[in-house]
Amino acid sequence: MNGKTVAISNTIMTELVMPNDTNPLGNLMGGNLMRWMDIAGGICAARHSESFVVTASVDHVSFSDSVKVGEIVTLNASITRAFNSSMEVYIEVFTATIPDQKPRKSNHAYLTFVALDKATMKPKLVPPVIPLTEEEEKRYEGAVRRRELRLILSGRMEAKDAKDLRDYFNKL
Amino acid sequence: MNGKTVAISNTIMTELVMPNDTNPLGNLMGGNLMRWMDIAGGICAARHSESFVVTASVDHVSFSDSVKVGEIVTLNASITRAFNSSMEVYIEVFTATIPDQKPRKSNHAYLTFVALDKATMKPKLVPPVIPLTEEEEKRYEGAVRRRELRLILSGRMEAKDAKDLRDYFNKL
Amino acid sequence: MNGKTVAISNTIMTELVMPNDTNPLGNLMGGNLMRWMDIAGGICAARHSESFVVTASVDHVSFSDSVKVGEIVTLNASITRAFNSSMEVYIEVFTATIPDQKPRKSNHAYLTFVALDKATMKPKLVPPVIPLTEEEEKRYEGAVRRRELRLILSGRMEAKDAKDLRDYFNKL
Amino acid sequence: MNGKTVAISNTIMTELVMPNDTNPLGNLMGGNLMRWMDIAGGICAARHSESFVVTASVDHVSFSDSVKVGEIVTLNASITRAFNSSMEVYIEVFTATIPDQKPRKSNHAYLTFVALDKATMKPKLVPPVIPLTEEEEKRYEGAVRRRELRLILSGRMEAKDAKDLRDYFNKL
Amino acid sequence: MNGKTVAISNTIMTELVMPNDTNPLGNLMGGNLMRWMDIAGGICAARHSESFVVTASVDHVSFSDSVKVGEIVTLNASITRAFNSSMEVYIEVFTATIPDQKPRKSNHAYLTFVALDKATMKPKLVPPVIPLTEEEEKRYEGAVRRRELRLILSGRMEAKDAKDLRDYFNKL
Amino acid sequence: MNGKTVAISNTIMTELVMPNDTNPLGNLMGGNLMRWMDIAGGICAARHSESFVVTASVDHVSFSDSVKVGEIVTLNASITRAFNSSMEVYIEVFTATIPDQKPRKSNHAYLTFVALDKATMKPKLVPPVIPLTEEEEKRYEGAVRRRELRLILSGRMEAKDAKDLRDYFNKL
Repeated sequence: MNGKTVAISNTIMTELVMPNDTNPLGNLMGGNLMRWMDIAGGICAARHSESFVVTASVDHVSFSDSVKVGEIVTLNASITRAFNSSMEVYIEVFTATIPDQKPRKSNHAYLTFVALDKATMKPKLVPPVIPLTEEEEKRYEGAVRRRELRLILSGRMEAKDAKDLRDYFNKL
Repeated sequence: MNGKTVAISNTIMTELVMPNDTNPLGNLMGGNLMRWMDIAGGICAARHSESFVVTASVDHVSFSDSVKVGEIVTLNASITRAFNSSMEVYIEVFTATIPDQKPRKSNHAYLTFVALDKATMKPKLVPPVIPLTEEEEKRYEGAVRRRELRLILSGRMEAKDAKDLRDYFNKL
Repeated sequence: MNGKTVAISNTIMTELVMPNDTNPLGNLMGGNLMRWMDIAGGICAARHSESFVVTASVDHVSFSDSVKVGEIVTLNASITRAFNSSMEVYIEVFTATIPDQKPRKSNHAYLTFVALDKATMKPKLVPPVIPLTEEEEKRYEGAVRRRELRLILSGRMEAKDAKDLRDYFNKL
Repeated sequence: MNGKTVAISNTIMTELVMPNDTNPLGNLMGGNLMRWMDIAGGICAARHSESFVVTASVDHVSFSDSVKVGEIVTLNASITRAFNSSMEVYIEVFTATIPDQKPRKSNHAYLTFVALDKATMKPKLVPPVIPLTEEEEKRYEGAVRRRELRLILSGRMEAKDAKDLRDYFNKL
Repeated sequence: MNGKTVAISNTIMTELVMPNDTNPLGNLMGGNLMRWMDIAGGICAARHSESFVVTASVDHVSFSDSVKVGEIVTLNASITRAFNSSMEVYIEVFTATIPDQKPRKSNHAYLTFVALDKATMKPKLVPPVIPLTEEEEKRYEGAVRRRELRLILSGRMEAKDAKDLRDYFNKL
Repeated sequence: MNGKTVAISNTIMTELVMPNDTNPLGNLMGGNLMRWMDIAGGICAARHSESFVVTASVDHVSFSDSVKVGEIVTLNASITRAFNSSMEVYIEVFTATIPDQKPRKSNHAYLTFVALDKATMKPKLVPPVIPLTEEEEKRYEGAVRRRELRLILSGRMEAKDAKDLRDYFNKL
């Protein structure tokens, strides 16, 4: 299967924070932002794999910054690496208030998706990712380590078998 | 007031057609697409004017193509020209089914927005648009004619006073 | 096929502007009003044609007046004329604040819909419209001219072939 | 305070049953229909009282008939009688499938609303209702009996004090 | 068919009142609370009957207390009694403001649901209810009387045939 | 500040998967489940702290199991430990199809929330958690380790300073 570049499936989603997206304090609810991340990441993975996809996991997400009603939220989803039928997608979230337009980075997260064959609903192979820029290379390399952490956290790998992750910790 | 390029406020919105966006035949409802156009256009105009904006008008929209649940809709909103406190935004809509990923152009529309001063809620001046590409130039030029048609259709100008529009018809 | 009067398919829709229908300034979003227009018009066309319908086009809509949360919006949709499988529907929008109840006309628009055969999903013939009142007659007559403008604006007719429209402009 | 006729505040609401209004069997959920009844009744009471209103009670509602996705639901809300600051509204619901357009009556209910003064948020007096037709007269008369049943069911009146209701039962 | 206890199908639903659940006065709309009651009751009846269910009726509901945006609403749904294919569910609603956390009872209602066979979509027999506590016994006994009132109110029984209801009124 | 038990703030949320909660394959979208987790966890944290709260982070979530339209989803949120103004909440998700009612565990996640003072909108101290059962003790102990991993993943702690986490890895 021929590889595909990151740019081909890059997905930009822009949202205006509406009253119903906010909690009673007037801040964008974390759960709503995660919902948008899931949609943006899913479209990116569907574009890369040319398949329907389902969410397999969401890695750690921090919410350090409050986002208010009326702000503009931009989500930028890029594939980082594919493993057989699964894909890791990196999502960066920027927010901007309307008067000054200075977008600030408010969050990022790694989500994984699995491509499904439409007829059998079974996982299907996806094209490899071809990283081009230095940034894309770095995310491509880190994907193995993040995958090991993910397998440990979901109880599907023992920590002692996580070779890349242990190398990483040992270097610290 | 210094002009701004079209690229600065360009806004891309990506949506996945969900079951609730469709009519009982499983097609994306025209009204839902118009709602997305209004949001994408409004964000674009807010970015250009660095202000809150309200929708002033929507020009003719055709729906020649049915969009199905599960398809990916991409809206691309670019400012074309500013007139004092109002801005014309051009929105192109592309749709793609998930298997083949061939995006097809499904719609386009011109919407106008008015920038409001937050304190007084009165219209405020917006920066002029600086068209750079040939495409941007062409849309910039056509904006006067479309504005005349808009003023006639909303009953605020008499057809006989629409100089640019009449020149256009005479050349045919 | 026997004609049907305008009254038979007349559709009234009443909506209360809820917090989530508004933009961050507390005004009803233009896109939400267009979504309601599309639903009201679609019900009217479905009633006239006794078929499922899809939206074919929306003509120019102006939003001169801001509508606030808590106001009552009434949409009145009436068929104006049928052309083979397509129907033009005229929609008037009135808004009223709760204390004074003086409804003011805030918008109007012409939308067109196409009737589909449920089995084949192909366009099907619809009954002609029988205009009775002077107002209905006037809208019936104007429908040809509006249709020509629509075909020009969507690039399916050349301006020089728009006979009724040119007669109209010449008389000005 | 001068009385007002029933016709002045009569409210018609038309809804198209969308996929998200239905339960997993594809039927309109009872709770969604009650939500529409509440909105239609509230608009009717707001129109009669020229005030903001809150729902005070909903009487018994039966759902004998299943309503499917794609059907058209029409709600007709008419005030029946006012008692100081509260109003009883009668709501009839009709549904029609799109092919045959034969509307069938699917439900009805009596809801009560209380008018609130906007500044103090306390109940305020509302105009009396002037029943004109025989039907309106009959509903006006029955309102006292329904109010007694309501007060008993909500524990605010003892059954023995419900004069009209007992007369009604005695006549059976 | 073996009976089932009330506890087995007891359903707790917790909701946070969001901006879009409220009316323009900032109070939870009665219709939205009824929608939640319908869902909680439907899940409880589905659990008891191990079937899909449809709402058959909603008894009188009073709204004496205003619930504000940001408050926590807890719905507690318990089956009271089964009659062939129908089930009566008792729903209590508690609300709590966030600072003090003192939940106050704000509403209660009896709803009835009918179990449907998935293949034929016809009503199907449901297991009897086994009341255990004194409270459950009391609701089990009262169910016959409430059912008679329901049949009278929906016009399917004449008041004179409502034996339990008349006994109840005579004892007053 | 006096400690509070886990049971006091335990929150149960029950949801019925509706058509609009699903993706085009008919499965509950991961992002919608995360949105429910955020609401359930936020209510739990608000109950423990008697304050408004904002989401600070979501730990790794796996979605191994597809949840279909019409299934019942139960979320059980329990506080595990408090750190000054932040609280960790453990959320377990169970799903059940309607016919068999065998709930299966489908997901779990740890979310953290920060309590805010309503007047200043600054973080405020929250009561300590008193673990009682063996399960509660185990989660209370593990909270330090999970917090260190969270601080590393969000770039606010260096891996070498994560004492508990390193002890944990060394024991493997």
